[in-house]
Amino acid sequence: MLNATVAAIGPLDGAAMAACRLRLDNLTKPLGSLHGLEELAVRMAGITGRARPQGLGKCIVLMAGDHGVAVEGVSAYPQEVTAQMVGNFLRGGAAINAFARHAGAELMLVDVGVAVDLPAADGLRRAKVAYGTGNIARGPAMTVEQALQAVAVGIEAAGEAIARGARIIGLGEMGIGNTTPSTAIVACYSLQPLAALTGCGTGLSGVAVAHKAAVIGRALAANRPDPAQPLDVLAKVGGFEIAGLVGVILGAAAGRAAVVLDGVITSAAALLAVKLAPAAAEYLVGSHFSCEPAHDEALALLGIKAYLHLNMRLGEGTGAALGMTLIDAGLGVLNDMKTFGEAAVAVAQDGPGALRQRADVTGT
Amino acid sequence: MLNATVAAIGPLDGAAMAACRLRLDNLTKPLGSLHGLEELAVRMAGITGRARPQGLGKCIVLMAGDHGVAVEGVSAYPQEVTAQMVGNFLRGGAAINAFARHAGAELMLVDVGVAVDLPAADGLRRAKVAYGTGNIARGPAMTVEQALQAVAVGIEAAGEAIARGARIIGLGEMGIGNTTPSTAIVACYSLQPLAALTGCGTGLSGVAVAHKAAVIGRALAANRPDPAQPLDVLAKVGGFEIAGLVGVILGAAAGRAAVVLDGVITSAAALLAVKLAPAAAEYLVGSHFSCEPAHDEALALLGIKAYLHLNMRLGEGTGAALGMTLIDAGLGVLNDMKTFGEAAVAVAQDGPGALRQRADVTGT
Repeated sequence: MLNATVAAIGPLDGAAMAACRLRLDNLTKPLGSLHGLEELAVRMAGITGRARPQGLGKCIVLMAGDHGVAVEGVSAYPQEVTAQMVGNFLRGGAAINAFARHAGAELMLVDVGVAVDLPAADGLRRAKVAYGTGNIARGPAMTVEQALQAVAVGIEAAGEAIARGARIIGLGEMGIGNTTPSTAIVACYSLQPLAALTGCGTGLSGVAVAHKAAVIGRALAANRPDPAQPLDVLAKVGGFEIAGLVGVILGAAAGRAAVVLDGVITSAAALLAVKLAPAAAEYLVGSHFSCEPAHDEALALLGIKAYLHLNMRLGEGTGAALGMTLIDAGLGVLNDMKTFGEAAVAVAQDGPGALRQRADVTGT
Repeated sequence: MLNATVAAIGPLDGAAMAACRLRLDNLTKPLGSLHGLEELAVRMAGITGRARPQGLGKCIVLMAGDHGVAVEGVSAYPQEVTAQMVGNFLRGGAAINAFARHAGAELMLVDVGVAVDLPAADGLRRAKVAYGTGNIARGPAMTVEQALQAVAVGIEAAGEAIARGARIIGLGEMGIGNTTPSTAIVACYSLQPLAALTGCGTGLSGVAVAHKAAVIGRALAANRPDPAQPLDVLAKVGGFEIAGLVGVILGAAAGRAAVVLDGVITSAAALLAVKLAPAAAEYLVGSHFSCEPAHDEALALLGIKAYLHLNMRLGEGTGAALGMTLIDAGLGVLNDMKTFGEAAVAVAQDGPGALRQRADVTGT
């Protein structure tokens, strides 16, 4: 399934992007003056293959999984909170519920590796590969077979979201301890020292961050992941929800849907997805900068811009949801504004004068 | 009217802010993990005097005026575009129309100094003080009496917006050439050299930016505005729409409405408003960083954070509209998420386990 999905990821549609660019350049505003939003609109044109994409469905796919490394004291929360928060998501009381409503996005919850059995519930996809990962400080997180299985879960989730109309897919995650494997993954591709990459997660003190960096160092030493083999990295120092997100990214790109990143966990998954399928990179859209240094580093490695500086460090897909609203704003510009030509027609009907585009607007 | 408005601006409501903060700290998320959005929610509590503000009306007040200094070649566009764009706003085809819809905000258009007569139209407040300013490169923009008159127009506009239910007021502007007076105003309060403060506006080339900086230098030399007297600065090197925005800020603060800044023009107005009424500062909310260096400098002088990095340089209130959506997101967190207590009740009804807040979440 992985190979077929990777093979199905095509380049962006250059003709649609050029047509979109042309319309943006003729809207009644200085050329390029809505810079970031215009970039987002053009990207959506390339992804969807439509010069004026509109009415695109939105879905946040939230993958949940647990981490054996939690026993090393790398999180401010105990492992049980993962399952408890999934319950909170299902009841609609968590941050991502508020953010998904705000963004007008559906929320798809997936148990791909929570440490306890979760009761069947409307809105929960039960696709558990295992009851949490192994402790990466002592050995691999999972087998390569399990990693492939979790990636397949994500590919299927993306496919279902697309089948239900989504063309903008936000990435979300829940997994106590998961900034630790995410930072380990980023470290595999970064020249920065671990101390510079390790952050406070949901709220560690300075001493605890140093301990967390040491645990990540032990994980890398114990497992020796091979950066040239992303599945090896994923299996050795990853997580089930991270593997699931790799699948969501690949499945979304194969189905020509945009993928909106959230924080460090989703960005670590993006690094691996792009290593597996370089063509997937163009389907990725950044949203916010979080407090995690490995997040900034992953975005830099991927060459992805983020737009929001809110110092958020929650995860769940909250940043992705805000990013979706920026895509909406970009598409609003594209679809709701008039071109100089359209406005000139209206002016001729309504009164004197005519808007015109001047050749010297952009200068040199 | 100015003195009465300034006197009516009170401090934020500390009790409402503390109650809001308490609720945010008890929501089912790590303490402070939605940092910027939580700040926005607390600020709205302080401004409105309600611990859980919701259903707040939104209005973007867009002030339009012309600038005599346009004859010096400081803009990529001719002066006539100001009036043409007001027509475009009225017909709904401009960027701010799309952005206001996206933000769910009303749009109030005010002619406070456009160089030509505008026909009566639904949605246009005709409050012209004069047919554009004088050329600041050679003399004052207006008299102090005219400046006070334009400020009063803004105070009245804010009052009407509030009377119609707005508690979040975005600032917008249209005026060909208006980054020039705005930069001159910022320069009065900045230690930075003019060359470092002057930007490309809607799209000048490098040579044209140097020319613009020279024109601003001539304006400051010709007028010698006194930074200690903000009305002197406003009258000598300001603009009618800038004066109107000063009034909107003061009127909004007096009516306990939040004021969302846009780019450099609105930030220059904010500098003057805060000089006139220091208590107004707490009612100001930043939105985006634009390409104008004087914008960054004004925000720094005001101590205001901006959240969006989109390299936008359009004005009209487009950044303010996006900022409003972030306030909405912050209020969504406050109102739509459950507290640990509320969620624990639900958990007890639905199944085993209970969410709980841990004392060690924030570390040290």
